[in-house]
Order: sequence, then structure tokens, then C-alpha cells
Amino acid sequence: MTERLEDEGRGTPSALASPRVAGILGTRSQVAAMLRVEAMIAAAQANVGLVPAEAADAIAAACEVDRYDVATLERAAGDSGNLAIPLVRALSEEVAEDARGWVHLGATSQDLLDSAAMLQARDVIDLLVDELRAIGVACVDLARRHVGTVMAARTLLQQATPTTFGLKAAHWLRVMTDGMERLGSLRASLPAQLGGAAGTLAALGEHGPAVTERLADRLGLAVPDLPWHTDREPVARLAAEVAIVAGGAAKIALDVALLMQTEVGEVVEGGAPGPSSAMPQKRNPVHAPAAIAAARLAAAAAGVVLDAIPQEHERGLGSWHAEREALMDVFRYGAGAVEHVRAIVDGLEVDPARMRANLDLAGGTALAEALVSALVPEVGRAEAFRLVRRACERVERDGGSLREAAGREEAITSILHPEEIDAALEPSGYLGSARMFVEASVTRFERVAGIRTT
Amino acid sequence: MTERLEDEGRGTPSALASPRVAGILGTRSQVAAMLRVEAMIAAAQANVGLVPAEAADAIAAACEVDRYDVATLERAAGDSGNLAIPLVRALSEEVAEDARGWVHLGATSQDLLDSAAMLQARDVIDLLVDELRAIGVACVDLARRHVGTVMAARTLLQQATPTTFGLKAAHWLRVMTDGMERLGSLRASLPAQLGGAAGTLAALGEHGPAVTERLADRLGLAVPDLPWHTDREPVARLAAEVAIVAGGAAKIALDVALLMQTEVGEVVEGGAPGPSSAMPQKRNPVHAPAAIAAARLAAAAAGVVLDAIPQEHERGLGSWHAEREALMDVFRYGAGAVEHVRAIVDGLEVDPARMRANLDLAGGTALAEALVSALVPEVGRAEAFRLVRRACERVERDGGSLREAAGREEAITSILHPEEIDAALEPSGYLGSARMFVEASVTRFERVAGIRTT
Amino acid sequence: MTERLEDEGRGTPSALASPRVAGILGTRSQVAAMLRVEAMIAAAQANVGLVPAEAADAIAAACEVDRYDVATLERAAGDSGNLAIPLVRALSEEVAEDARGWVHLGATSQDLLDSAAMLQARDVIDLLVDELRAIGVACVDLARRHVGTVMAARTLLQQATPTTFGLKAAHWLRVMTDGMERLGSLRASLPAQLGGAAGTLAALGEHGPAVTERLADRLGLAVPDLPWHTDREPVARLAAEVAIVAGGAAKIALDVALLMQTEVGEVVEGGAPGPSSAMPQKRNPVHAPAAIAAARLAAAAAGVVLDAIPQEHERGLGSWHAEREALMDVFRYGAGAVEHVRAIVDGLEVDPARMRANLDLAGGTALAEALVSALVPEVGRAEAFRLVRRACERVERDGGSLREAAGREEAITSILHPEEIDAALEPSGYLGSARMFVEASVTRFERVAGIRTT
Amino acid sequence: MTERLEDEGRGTPSALASPRVAGILGTRSQVAAMLRVEAMIAAAQANVGLVPAEAADAIAAACEVDRYDVATLERAAGDSGNLAIPLVRALSEEVAEDARGWVHLGATSQDLLDSAAMLQARDVIDLLVDELRAIGVACVDLARRHVGTVMAARTLLQQATPTTFGLKAAHWLRVMTDGMERLGSLRASLPAQLGGAAGTLAALGEHGPAVTERLADRLGLAVPDLPWHTDREPVARLAAEVAIVAGGAAKIALDVALLMQTEVGEVVEGGAPGPSSAMPQKRNPVHAPAAIAAARLAAAAAGVVLDAIPQEHERGLGSWHAEREALMDVFRYGAGAVEHVRAIVDGLEVDPARMRANLDLAGGTALAEALVSALVPEVGRAEAFRLVRRACERVERDGGSLREAAGREEAITSILHPEEIDAALEPSGYLGSARMFVEASVTRFERVAGIRTT
Repeated sequence: MTERLEDEGRGTPSALASPRVAGILGTRSQVAAMLRVEAMIAAAQANVGLVPAEAADAIAAACEVDRYDVATLERAAGDSGNLAIPLVRALSEEVAEDARGWVHLGATSQDLLDSAAMLQARDVIDLLVDELRAIGVACVDLARRHVGTVMAARTLLQQATPTTFGLKAAHWLRVMTDGMERLGSLRASLPAQLGGAAGTLAALGEHGPAVTERLADRLGLAVPDLPWHTDREPVARLAAEVAIVAGGAAKIALDVALLMQTEVGEVVEGGAPGPSSAMPQKRNPVHAPAAIAAARLAAAAAGVVLDAIPQEHERGLGSWHAEREALMDVFRYGAGAVEHVRAIVDGLEVDPARMRANLDLAGGTALAEALVSALVPEVGRAEAFRLVRRACERVERDGGSLREAAGREEAITSILHPEEIDAALEPSGYLGSARMFVEASVTRFERVAGIRTT
Repeated sequence: MTERLEDEGRGTPSALASPRVAGILGTRSQVAAMLRVEAMIAAAQANVGLVPAEAADAIAAACEVDRYDVATLERAAGDSGNLAIPLVRALSEEVAEDARGWVHLGATSQDLLDSAAMLQARDVIDLLVDELRAIGVACVDLARRHVGTVMAARTLLQQATPTTFGLKAAHWLRVMTDGMERLGSLRASLPAQLGGAAGTLAALGEHGPAVTERLADRLGLAVPDLPWHTDREPVARLAAEVAIVAGGAAKIALDVALLMQTEVGEVVEGGAPGPSSAMPQKRNPVHAPAAIAAARLAAAAAGVVLDAIPQEHERGLGSWHAEREALMDVFRYGAGAVEHVRAIVDGLEVDPARMRANLDLAGGTALAEALVSALVPEVGRAEAFRLVRRACERVERDGGSLREAAGREEAITSILHPEEIDAALEPSGYLGSARMFVEASVTRFERVAGIRTT
Repeated sequence: MTERLEDEGRGTPSALASPRVAGILGTRSQVAAMLRVEAMIAAAQANVGLVPAEAADAIAAACEVDRYDVATLERAAGDSGNLAIPLVRALSEEVAEDARGWVHLGATSQDLLDSAAMLQARDVIDLLVDELRAIGVACVDLARRHVGTVMAARTLLQQATPTTFGLKAAHWLRVMTDGMERLGSLRASLPAQLGGAAGTLAALGEHGPAVTERLADRLGLAVPDLPWHTDREPVARLAAEVAIVAGGAAKIALDVALLMQTEVGEVVEGGAPGPSSAMPQKRNPVHAPAAIAAARLAAAAAGVVLDAIPQEHERGLGSWHAEREALMDVFRYGAGAVEHVRAIVDGLEVDPARMRANLDLAGGTALAEALVSALVPEVGRAEAFRLVRRACERVERDGGSLREAAGREEAITSILHPEEIDAALEPSGYLGSARMFVEASVTRFERVAGIRTT
Repeated sequence: MTERLEDEGRGTPSALASPRVAGILGTRSQVAAMLRVEAMIAAAQANVGLVPAEAADAIAAACEVDRYDVATLERAAGDSGNLAIPLVRALSEEVAEDARGWVHLGATSQDLLDSAAMLQARDVIDLLVDELRAIGVACVDLARRHVGTVMAARTLLQQATPTTFGLKAAHWLRVMTDGMERLGSLRASLPAQLGGAAGTLAALGEHGPAVTERLADRLGLAVPDLPWHTDREPVARLAAEVAIVAGGAAKIALDVALLMQTEVGEVVEGGAPGPSSAMPQKRNPVHAPAAIAAARLAAAAAGVVLDAIPQEHERGLGSWHAEREALMDVFRYGAGAVEHVRAIVDGLEVDPARMRANLDLAGGTALAEALVSALVPEVGRAEAFRLVRRACERVERDGGSLREAAGREEAITSILHPEEIDAALEPSGYLGSARMFVEASVTRFERVAGIRTT
């Protein structure tokens, strides 16, 4: 038996997850959210006459998070499997005796936990939308500044045709815009949870729907038609969207990491470069791999949430437990990915000269399609394709540039003058709708974000 | 070396996946969809003056799926990695020579494949929505017929309190309604794809956005702001939602399988029971395990789609390939889950007597909360809980019923008369908002489905 | 904008994960492990003459975890992306100036992190094997005590034929035995990592393999043929096996939760029952859902590790980062599942009378195959199956028992006397190899665990 | 409602999955394997005296796959949920009446399906091992030929230090060797399945273990201690290992795709380059993205298998069904990944000149660590690092080479002569253990593969 390495800690904090979201999801925040829910349940019940107004007030007064010892609750949660049971007990003790009987009336642990989770989710969404907006603003700036910066578009990692860095940034922007829009719509649909022991709200008599409606209003959550103890679609939609947003952010990170390669060298991610413990020259990407890894972990956690939808009868057996933990991971890692990408785009260094120079690698054959286009009116598409392909093969075999190789193809020079060949092979002349796409993306962002960039 | 087992087939067809969706996704359907896209690209280009109208007509005429040998294309696809390249070649050969040069103008393989996938997705959604509606109709019927059928609600697989089978069906219904609503919204947002070689539509000059808009209109797809070759969020949202719908269906299957247990015996799934090759008495659930398994496979495939969002530059390196295949699996298995659940609810046998009888197992302690509620006004919640808990422990220790045990607790009998205890312990009197929830769920389904059930 | 819920914590500690493994993986433990690796690198280099012995001694002296402020290192790790860079810096400062140059000689951050991870993995394996052994001992006891306790075997949740609870425990035992064996074999193969900046150990000249060998010996790890910076199979095999062990544990939990159902009532999990905040009678399973959920999270994390195998060139871009974090989750949740299952089996309550009684539900048709077997010698299998099926249908239609129904089938009574029917329908007479299987499982456990139970 | 695209097909065959494995897993192969199992069950039972020898012979004679209409069985399987029930029925009809009663004696559907799956798994393993060996042979050749071919090692996609292409190939080789070894060991442990209706083999009386042993021997499978109907670890270990092998193959594909980038241009994958439908110059990687995608799908499917380990009681409810389908996907995609990688390495084009030239990008700073090493003996590690870092920063700021920048650092030139600087910066002089690692990897492959390459 080996000497065992142990400490009392909770594991190394993740460099991939969002520390701010860790705060939103922390025990203290969760206790605060659960207390808010308890207070609002009592208030809603007072409103319909189920609970005396004074009792509801007394409960509200006791629902101050600072009155509770979070560490003690945390330990007790370890035994019960969740925070609800010790918290309800502690709250009851905190409430004056004559109001005590009205605490947690007709509610069940899952009502507390789910409603609190929706409050926490709302805060996570707000944080995410803020970050997406900030990334968006940076992308708008990049898109505008580089609307004319030609670079190679790359498909399957091979240079394809010219594009602009502005268009690349406009794509990044679009994904952020979509995420803001969809998260905003999900935020408005986060439902309060109130079902009681088994979903009938039996202990509230006929007042169930009325109490639920008032509770939801007070919490600023949506009113559910029915309790959703084992109808987990709202949670699954949320998890999926956060993972989608994280994946979109990671696409930015992936593009940047690929553009940062020593052999490409077109951009450098923002923030301090990562040193190496062995190599003095290294300027490692730091945020890009972190964002990529975080998005992957968020996607996997979202997969658990999707897989946990089928929950048993009126409370899931393990499926609910797995979902809760996975949802928190989606939030932590999803926000982590987004935050790392914000660091990437804030202060991204762009090297337009290198972008232009790289287009000349491989003899400038990235303009081959442009040359085809120039030939099509005369010889048709198939023949044009064949001619240019032959010129490209010559470049590949003998070196030199496509311009030179084209000049040696009589079938081409009989159609195009040298200056026409030059014009066809000028990247800035073969950008199609790139500029319009940039404008469309910026316009849509401004509309969704409700801001004017300039 | 062992003698190898081989044949020429494509593997056993899955009993879990939807055969109808397999049809929608089959090579022939895919070729038909791709040809429709090619025809509409030419038509859109003709509309803006890029292509002669006659050429567009000639192309449209050649875009008849019956003109092509699907098996040959399939084999060629095996070599190229996808169907687009051999199909464009075959189409070009099919078009008269003077129109040939206008085939596939300015488009790339992914434009074809993505746009066709969106057409196929639309068909899958239509099929899914039809099934969800049919399940919904069956659930409405169950919910109404059993609005007063008491049964045990079960949390963590333990009997909790009474509920009704009608409410259970109303929950199933709600999930179907949500799915219909969200799939409908996604259906309207499925975007056409047109970006050309690398997303600039360079070969279309300034006409990119105009052609894209006309193409989308003709295909009945949404107009994208920009091409989305590597912005895969639309695909991911679609995959997630289909997996969510499948998961919701599987929850029905799971409930039914649990209720079918020999020891529970409250329902039997629709369709012929599954025989056993060994045991004469077996009436195995057939559709329930299939639906559960199919939903799990759909969720895993959706996880791949989420994980594949970060795609490299202007065309993904493997990520796109994995996403495509996974999306098809989401469709196949997602629809499979839904179809199996339709078989479950169509003709579901319900045994109200057994439901009622099961509530008396464990001495009827499933009514314990009801008894607490009856005592609260006199002694407060904590004391009421304590008293009833003591009675429950007596039942557990000595057997007998909660009614009897309560009768032996002087602290209880001093508050409640025997007939009051009886009333408290009558399940049908402790159903809270169950009936209202059923109504709410039915009403919402009728609104979303646009039908009146009666 | 909502008022945001925040605190400084690291999130609620998981009730699903193992707190002891959280200790093994905590920052302090990780720092200790990394320091041990640094000390042994220097010692190994001294041994081959690359480093003066005094320098190695000085480094070893500085590699005391208590000399370092773990919280400071943790903060610095947040900036660098990992602990290695700040730790090497701190260690260098701690070492006397003349030895300082020999610190971390020829090594890279990943050497430290991977080697330390293998040391931590070894501790996790030791903990897991201890737990599996303890579960195994409890299962041996259950298997022996209940070798004759008849109960219903259930396939697809339908009663199938009789089995024994002893055989069920023997299956649980077998899975623990397999896990012990495979984890033991993996423990012996955990490789040290030493590759230097990019896997050539260039800074060690010709001494690379010799230093690696000595380092591995000193750490008690396996000697790798080559560094494995981006050959992640050892990590993947480890993650998969821990997830497999967790899944096997969760099968025990699932069986127990199903047997605990109110309607089945055959066992109660060990440990204090889970209370409900609403229902006095509830004895919720606590450990079973936790184990099921933990295993699911471990499996998902293992899936991330599998997916992260393809890592870029000589150091992964995000793939390595995702793998590290996922591996830690596999450990935390995998051990959590196993620990919860230990709590389940230690003190599991078994109710043999209820097991026997449940076999009589459905008229005792769980013995139908036994009756078929009794008839086969006279009428052949097909006819026997047909006759018994008819009797079973009669039971299903009219109620009563299979014994009575068989007595009414003349084709049966013409072959079997009433007492022969009774004998055929006696569960204890139709257990086949159950006893032998129990013995085989116990014997194998004793051999693998190297202990004699009695 | 849209016009629906449908056909009768089973979906487009995947370009990612292995067609040969599709053959092994096809219905005909599966029927053949199941018939072999039935024949051997009867033979084993005859051997212990349970079945007349003539009956066993008659059954064996009927177990010829050509006697059965596979398409009919396939359709019937669609109704029953699996092939076993219709096949047993068809087999019984094929056997002469007096032997008919002995068909499938004491066995259950899952016995057939699991045992047949293990036979199919063995064939898949054989195919995989053949492919791994072939890839290994190609890697040996690459490793030897390029043992001195210097290239840049890349960490986080940044050039790090020199390495050799031979060493890269040796890493690829090592992973193949490990896979062969582990698959070989798993092949020997694939267990036969025989448990009967519910795992007691009750219908075989006391003969259960003896029959199982003889069955396993005849099938060439391992003898299980107990049936493993719901102990799914053997399947999970198999799925995990195939996914691991696929991931290792995909790492080769990923390296190749990165090295194929236009800006890197160091290798070209084997096989015909992929054309583009739009761009004449494109030489797309075809097999690399396919292998990457296939490995990802295999990993996801393996994740389903891991997640499906906890199966209910004596037969899983959906978990078993999901596992079966996922296992087949692991096989199909896993083998697909491996086959695509074989195409990559067979005929891989390598460009040593470009490899060498790329090392000079970034002013040759990839040799910075080498220069540090040369300075350490004089000034210690920290100072050497600082000096070289300053020179690297000069290169980054002003351009030029590290050689020139070092020549301008007086602190460096005061220690090292120009020719010493040159020597330090010569890549071929800074390869450490690369050659030894190559030899170790080749030697181990030869031992495991049992072949001598030369």
C-alpha cells in the first residue's frame, strides 16, 4: 500500500470553468436563492389567504442568508443528499413559533431546489449575455477594421479562395448574436417550480394554480401550466443552448489557435502569452485551448442532461440527481468557454501583411477559382475548370506561381490578356459578397444587442 | 484465424430507429433533395440575370431523380466521401451542352448537402409533429377518462401521495405539446445554405445575397444572413430539440414499463405483447424498452452534434463529417422513440382497480401527508408531522393500516373524529389541483395543435 | 438586470462525488505529488551523472509540500493555465542558488502533471480496490446467507422464473471481483512521464531512457518505451475501467432501488433512510440514486477522455486540457458511486418472506417454465409450451393460480399427478445451477482478493 | 404539409464506417452465428447426456444459414424486437419432428444474441488486428526511413524544438502495438453466454456449468463463471478498447491533416486526393477527416455502452437494447477509422525538405532550448533562459534569425564561439533520445506482431 496523498480541499479549482459562475452556483448563493423562494411561497400563500400575512412577513424576515451558517448547512446536505431538508429545518427554527407552522407549506424539496436553480440560471444567462455582447462588440470592431483585409479561406485546412478577416469576424459575431437572442428567449421562459409532495399541490387545496402564479410573478419567473418535477425539457433546452453558445465560442478559439500556428502566424490571441517552462521562444495560446476544452466539457455535460430527461414517475431515481450536477457543469464550463474567448478577442493582434503573404504560398493557387470564373464566359465551366486545373498541376509539379503557369497555357492566354489574368488573380477583386455579409452581421447584432456601434 | 462471417448487407436494420425516417434519409431521397436544390439555384440565378432562363429550365428538367441510377451514385460517393461530387458530374452530363456550364454555378458541395439536409430535416419534423399530435390526442383521451382515477404518485420509486392517472397523462401531454411548439418554430427557421467555395459567393459577383434569398424562397427555407458552413448552431439546435422530444417520449415509456411490472400491474402497453422464447407466461413490454433505448441513442448522437460545433475555418475537418452522420442518427432514433411511444399509448390498457388497490399497500401510508394537513390547523406543522410519523412507524413495525395506527394515537384522536380521519385518508379527497392541471394541459394542447378534442 | 447572486465559494460540494478522492485530487495533494516527481527527476539524473549528487539532495530537501503556500500557487495556476509553471518557479527559489540550475532539468510542465496524475491515479485505484473488496465481502455474506432464499428473477421488469437472492448477490460479487482484477492490472501499468520540451528529451543528451527508467523505478511507476505526451491510451484505459467499475456498482444500486419499491418491498438499502420534507411515511433510497447518478456522470466523463485521445502533434490543443479535467471527474464520480454502493450493501435489509410472497403474485405463473420442463419428456417442448401457455392465459383472464389452472387442463393432468404438479411449481426445486454459480463467484473472489471468508 | 421525400432504402451507407465490418454484422452473418450457437448448445447438451446424440446431429444439420430466408427473418425481427424468436421458430420447423423438442433447450433469446455477438466481435477483432498490423508495418517503414529526418515538434500548435519524422511515426506505431496487444487479450476473454430464462439454467437441472463449458469450448469462447445477462462489463471493456484504438488511429489522421495544411505542406495522405466541386487546385484530405469523424462517433457509441452498464435485474429494460446497437456502431466506426488510417499511411508522401525549411520559420527559434542547454554549464539555467529569451524577443520584434540575434548578445558571445552557436542551433544535433525511442518502438512492435521487419 502506498502512502496516500490527501488533503481536505475540494480539488484544484478548474482553470477552464468560470470563477464567476462558480460564485453564482456556490452554496451561499444557492441558500440565498432557496430562502428567497421560501419567502415568496409564503407571500404568495398569504396573498390568496392560505397563510396569515404576519406569518408570511415573519418568514420573509427569517429568509436572510446572513442568518445562516452556510458551512453547517453544507455539511448537513452531505448527509441528506441535498440542501433543502436542512435548510427548511434551520429556517423553521429561525421563524417565531407562531409562524413556524407556515414555513414550506405544501412544498417539497424539489420545489425549492428547482425554483432556486432557475433563479441561478437567470443570473448565469445574464452573465453569459453580457459576455456575448462584449465579444460581439469586439467582433464588430474587427469586422469593420478588416472588412478589406484579404486572407485565405481554408476548407479542410487547405487554402481555398480569398476571403477577408472582416468576414471571419462577422461569422464569429453572428454566432454571438444568435446566442444572445436565444438565451434571451430562454430567460423569459424559465419556469417557477411548485408541485408539492408529488405534483398535485394537495396541501394547498384548490389554491394550487393561484399560488403558483403569484410565486412565479414574485420571483420573476414564468408561470408553468403544471409542475415539472419530472418533465425536464425546460432544463434540457437551457443546457443545450448554453452548450451551443460555448461551442460557438470555441469555434472562435479554434480559428485563432489555427491562425496562431508558427507556420501561419496571422493572429495572436489577446492577453499575456503563455510561457513555457522549457522553451524561451514559446508564445503559447492560453485562452484558446482553455475555451476549446471548456466547450467540450460543456457539451458532454449537456449530453448528460439530455440523457436524463426520462425521469421515473413523479421524481427521478438518480436521473434528477445526475441532471442537476450536469447542469451546473454546463453553466460552469459554458461560461468558462465564453470568458476565455472574450480574453481572446479583446486585444486580438492581427497581421494583415502575413495574411496577404500566406495567400501567395502554393503559388497563389488559392485564386484558381477566380481564374476559372474569368474563363467561363468564353469556354464554359467544364473547360475552364480543366484548363486551370492543368495550370495548378504545373505549379504543384514545377513550382512557380499560378500567374506564371497560366501565362504558359496557350488556351488561357488566347482568351485573357496578361493584365486580365492579373486582375483575375488579384484577391481583393474576388471577394464576392464578403462586404455585404459583414454589414448584415453587424446590423443584426446592433438590433439584437440594442446598441449602436460606430 | 477464424473463419470470417461476412455478407454483403448493410447490417441488420435497427428495430429502434424509424423505418419511415430511414426512407426520408435514404440515398434516393437525398439525391432528389440535392437535385431540387440544384434546380432552384439555377432558377434563382436566372431570376437575377446571372444565368439564361433557358439554361435554368434545362437544368430543372434534368433534376428529375428518376433519371439517375442511385446505386451508381452511392458507390461513387463511397470514393469521394460524399454524394455531391458524383451527383454534380452526373447532372452536368444529363444537361444539354449549352446549358451545362451553368450547372452548380458558384456553389460548393456543402451548399448542396446542407440545403438538402434542411429539406430532409423539414420532412422529419413534419413526421415528428404528426406523431406528437397523435400521441397528444391519445393522452387527451387518457387524461379525460382518468381525471378521477386515483393512483399512487411515486417519488424515488416510493409511493408518495395520491395522484390521478389523468394527471400523469396530462404531463405526458404537456411534453408533446411543448415539442410540437418548439419543432414548429425550428421548422420555420431552417436556413438554406449557399456560400460557394469558401463562403464569399465570389463566383456570383455582387449577386450573392439576392440569389440566396431567391433560393431560400423557392425551397421554402429561411434566408440566412450569411452562409453557415462552419456556424453549425442551426443544426445543433435542431438535433438538441429532436433528442429532447425523444427523451420526453421515453419518459412515457419508462412510466409505462414501471407500471407494467408484475408487482404493480397498473397498465399494459399497446400493441401485441412480446413473447418469450423460454417462458409461456411472459407478456414483455416491447415498445417501452425500444423507446427508452432509442431516446438514449438519440441523446448520444445529439451530444456528438453539440461537440462538433467548433469547426475549422471555412469547412470542418472531420467535425462536419461526424455532425452529419450524428444528425441522421438523431433523426432516425428520435423518430423511432416517438413512434414506439405512439404504439404504447394507442391502446394502452389501464387497470383503475389495481391502481386503487396498490394505494392500500404499505397500510395506506401514502396518505400520510393528507393526515398531516388535517392536523396542522390544530397543532401546527411540526407537531402534526411528528404525530403522523409515529403512526407510520407503527405501521411499518407492526403492520396494519395507517387508519388503525392513527386511531391508536391519542394525540390524533383527541383532535380528529374517526370519520374525520377516514375523510383525511380518502385518496379522492386529497388530489389538490390535479383536475385543474389536467384541464390546463388539455387546453394548451388544443391551442397548439389547432384541434378540438371532445 | 437582476440583482446577482454571488459568493466566493467554489460551488456546492457534490453529494455524488467521493470526498476522499476530492482529497487525493486536491491542490495540496497535487503539489505534493509534483514535488515528489521533481525530487525523483533530480535523483535519477544524479544517478546517471547528469546532476551533482549534492544538487539532487538539495532539490529533494526543497520538495517538501509544507514549504509552499498552496493557496498562492493555486492563484498563480489560474493565470498560467496549470500548476506546473508557478510550482517550478517557487521550487527554484526554495533551492539554494548553486543547485538551482538543476531544477526541472530537461523536463516540461506536462512531465510533471502527467507523472503526478499517475501517482494520484494510483491512490485512487487503491481506494477503489479497498472499496470493491469491502463490497465484495458484504456480497459474499449475502450470497451465502441467501443461497436458498428464493425470489423472482425479473426480465424486462416482469417476473420470469425463480432465482435466489444469493445468486443475485453472487452476480454483484462477480462484477466487484472483475473490477479488482482489472484495476490491479492497470495499477501496475501506470507509466511515468518524461519527454522534455517536445518528447525527445534532447536536454538530457543520450541519457533519456536511463533517466526515465530510474525515475519510474523511484516513483513506483511503469517505465514507458517512449514518452506519451500525446499517446493518451493509458489514460483512456484507466478512465474507461473506472467508469466500468462505477457502472457495475450502479447496477447493484439499481437492483436495490427496484427491490425497494413500495410494491416490491424485498430489501432496504443500508444507512439511514432518507426523510422527506413533506411526507412522514417516506423511507427514500438515498445511496441508490446517488450511486446511479454518479456512475452516469463517470461514464460521461470517460466518454470525454475517449473522445480526447486524438491530440495534436506533440501537445494537445484543448484535448489534453479537457482530458485532464474529465479524468478527475471520472475518479471523483466513479469512487462516489462505489462508496455509495458500499453504504447500500453494508447493512442491507433483506426480507425473504416478501421475496417468497411476491413469487405468488400473478398466480405463481413465474413457475410456468418449470411446468413446461416437467411436461417436455412426455409431449415435447412445443406442445408443453402450448399447454402451459393456455393455463397461463386462463390465470390472466380468470384469476386464480397456475396450480389451479394446470389442474383444470386435462392434457396436463393426464400426464402429471397433482403432487407432480405441486413439485414442478415449487420454486426451490427449480433453481438449476444457482447454488453452483454462487460457489463459483465466491471462490473466484477469494482467490482474487486473496482472503478467505467463512 | 410538404411533399415528402421518401424511399425504401435504409439510409445512405456511411462513408465513415467500415463496409467489411458491416458485412460481419449483417443479418446473414448474424443468423449464421446464431445458428452456430444453437448447433453447439445441442451438441454440448448431447455430450453431457441431456439430449440424444441423433437429435443434436439433426439440429446441427438444420443450422445451415443457406436454408433460411434472411429477408423474411429480418422482417419478423422487426415485429419481435430481435432475431432470436423468429429464428428459433424457423429452426424448429427445419428440424425433423422427433428432434424438434431439443431445439433451444433451456436457452433464452439473449443467450443466442450475446453468444453470437461474441463470435461477431471476434471477427471484428481479427479484422482490426490485421489492420493495426498493416498500419504498424507502414509505420515501421516510415520510422526507419525518417529516423534522421528533422522536423519541428509542435506543442499547442507552436513550433517547440526539433524532432524527427521517424519519432513521430514511432509514436503512431506504439499506439498500434498497444492496440494489438490489448485486443488480443480481449479476444481470448470473450465469453460464451448461457443462462436460460433468467440466469439459473434451471431447465438443465444440475448440468448448467458443464453444458456452458462445452458450449464455450466448441465456440472457441471463454467459459464464464456465471451467465452475464446483466453483467455487461465484458461488452463495455470491448467497446472501450475499440474506441481507444480508433482514437489512436485518429491521432495519426489529425497529425497528417495538420501537416498537410497549405502553410505546412510536409506530408500528403495516401490514396487519391479529394477533388473539390468548385476549386481546381484543391487536394483535399479525404481519409483524414473520415478517420477523425469515425473515431468521434466510435467514442460516443462507446460512451453509450459505458452508460448502459447498469441493467435492470436479470434483463435490461432498454439498456440492453441501446448497448447492442451502440456496440455495433463502435465496431463499424472503429474499424472505419482504422481502415481510413491505413489508407493514409499506405503511400503517405513525406517532404523532408519542407520539414527542414519549416524549422527556419520564426528565425529558427525552435532551437532556443538547444541554445539554453549550451549556455547552462556556464551561467546556470535561469540566466541561460533569460539570455535566450531576450534573443528570441529580438527576433520577434526585428525579424532575422536566432543565430543573428544570439550573435548580437554579448553575454552569449562571451561564452560561445560563433561555431559553437552554430552547432547548438543545428537541429540534427539536438535530437536527444529520438533514435533510441524509434528503435524501442520498432522492437516492441516486432515482438507483439510476431514478425520481423527489415
